[in-house]
Amino acid sequence: MAETIRIPFERLRDFMTLAMTRLGLREEDAAIVGRLMAEAELQGSDGHGAIRLLPYARRIRAGGINLHPDVRIVQERPGMALLDGDNGMGHLVMHKAAQIAVEKARHCGVAWVGARLSNHAGPASLYARMPMAHDMIGMYFAVGNANHLPAWGGLDMLLSTNPIAVAVPAGDEPPVVLDMATTVAAYGKVKAKAQRGEQMPVGWMIDRLGQPLTDPKRADEGFLMPIGGYKGYGLALVVGLLAGTLNGAAMGREVLDFNKDFRSTTNTGQAILAIDPAAFGDVPAFKARVDTVIREMRGSERMPGVERIWLPGEQSHLRRQQSEREGLALPSALLAQLDTLARELDIPALQST
Amino acid sequence: MAETIRIPFERLRDFMTLAMTRLGLREEDAAIVGRLMAEAELQGSDGHGAIRLLPYARRIRAGGINLHPDVRIVQERPGMALLDGDNGMGHLVMHKAAQIAVEKARHCGVAWVGARLSNHAGPASLYARMPMAHDMIGMYFAVGNANHLPAWGGLDMLLSTNPIAVAVPAGDEPPVVLDMATTVAAYGKVKAKAQRGEQMPVGWMIDRLGQPLTDPKRADEGFLMPIGGYKGYGLALVVGLLAGTLNGAAMGREVLDFNKDFRSTTNTGQAILAIDPAAFGDVPAFKARVDTVIREMRGSERMPGVERIWLPGEQSHLRRQQSEREGLALPSALLAQLDTLARELDIPALQST
Repeated sequence: MAETIRIPFERLRDFMTLAMTRLGLREEDAAIVGRLMAEAELQGSDGHGAIRLLPYARRIRAGGINLHPDVRIVQERPGMALLDGDNGMGHLVMHKAAQIAVEKARHCGVAWVGARLSNHAGPASLYARMPMAHDMIGMYFAVGNANHLPAWGGLDMLLSTNPIAVAVPAGDEPPVVLDMATTVAAYGKVKAKAQRGEQMPVGWMIDRLGQPLTDPKRADEGFLMPIGGYKGYGLALVVGLLAGTLNGAAMGREVLDFNKDFRSTTNTGQAILAIDPAAFGDVPAFKARVDTVIREMRGSERMPGVERIWLPGEQSHLRRQQSEREGLALPSALLAQLDTLARELDIPALQST
Repeated sequence: MAETIRIPFERLRDFMTLAMTRLGLREEDAAIVGRLMAEAELQGSDGHGAIRLLPYARRIRAGGINLHPDVRIVQERPGMALLDGDNGMGHLVMHKAAQIAVEKARHCGVAWVGARLSNHAGPASLYARMPMAHDMIGMYFAVGNANHLPAWGGLDMLLSTNPIAVAVPAGDEPPVVLDMATTVAAYGKVKAKAQRGEQMPVGWMIDRLGQPLTDPKRADEGFLMPIGGYKGYGLALVVGLLAGTLNGAAMGREVLDFNKDFRSTTNTGQAILAIDPAAFGDVPAFKARVDTVIREMRGSERMPGVERIWLPGEQSHLRRQQSEREGLALPSALLAQLDTLARELDIPALQST
């Protein structure tokens, strides 16, 4: 385990906000992006939190992001909207999308807001969670920003790990928050295995002959495996059609690899669905039923060696509570990188502020 | 391969309709159920088509189905409705749900209709496909009618194979129709392996120690595996919360095994979402983009030994076309069972009509 240093949430949020301001975002936009990046870290989505500042900065400096976007509704009906993100930071686009979805769901019961010309927005669950502040259910679909898997049986990487997130409010229990890539492992986990010099389990990746690939250093020679084989391929595909194709956003060959091209417009597509349980009946009664389901799962008899049965989002919930008490645990190597950027941007270092 | 006999679609539809009428359904209701059961067969969902007549008849005769249900809206907003299925046949409930969803989506752009006190309705894709007749996208979620998997790490079977179906209309290509249980294999496939005396592949089931279970005759000693391990558990859970708990329908311990109890009200929950692409922009342009994605997948370079890359729903589409030309292929053993029932109901036999 790499050395970590605890940083208070507020300090990371303010650092990210200041960095985004110096990179050229409007102050109010920088505040939204900075807060959401820190919240990603708070909920334990460490692959989508502070670590993303450097690639975001690189893309901004390369001219790949519109720093003053006009995020606007281009299509609208009572229960839906389509946003043009104007190539702004994805956080701004999907933050607005979630707000609109909640407003429309209050009237219609259910509302769907899609976006095109958006960008990477951090973890899917960050947005699926937003309607929960209004006692609503949230669902989020996105086209990932690099293709890592082929069609089932194919060799051309035409699909990303297109994630699905669903957040369901509970009563006394933590909410159920599912946030999953449609692949067995996310690509970040492969990179982490390579860094630690470890082998991958069978089932994460296959090579071009369809054989298991377990050496993460050979990751370029193979593909991520979709969950459930052809089923995960189908899920990745329909998520891409809903979050990308429907919105006029990139899908299939149009998806560029944002780890290699920092300048071209990604035309990222995402979608959020808000469902208001109040439209279906009494909200406390609904939440009590969710509590019952949660307790049934947790209270189930366990397999030998299993210490605890977790609900989706429960470990993230505990990590959030711990981070609120003790601060966010950031790897010291990452802190050093962030402070190098801080010097370049002429803002106070994160570690000493 | 068991011997099969070709029966024209119309003959099966009329047979099912007449059987349902004799079992006590109203004529107009029997016509809907009969047609949908034959359509399930037509699209190749043979586990949800003609084979279901016998268990449906058994449930009806046991008094487990309301033959004259008042399927009605109990909650409503412009973009949603909640139906009380009044313990009628699930086909009637979800047929009505799909109609309402399409009507509401025309106005709102997107609409969600949930149901409680419904029953088994056949294959998920049958309902996800319905909005496509109106150039809309359909999504369908359901709580299965028997629990076959525990929470991840657990031993109590608290979850069903809760399916997800998504149907996306294309232009010149067949539509993309995903219809998947959230388990690696559906339980029907396990039963089929047992009947044929074959072993199951590793990954379909595990035993109570978490070890692979490959003998289908020992299926009672283990559980179906969710796709992607804990991810599929999460999917099955959230589908159950959306299709069951939100609607006040059965979920978790409340789900009864409809293969064992033919009398009690199942309180089955299902939900359908209709999305009108016309709300998002030009429909032919959308369909052309879907065609492009389909062709990219199909035209991809293939792994050695892979003859063709399939899109979700494409094999079902071809089977439907073949069945329309040549008739539905029904196993002769099933035909014999259906004709035994026909004699009991005093209606003309299926094979000789």
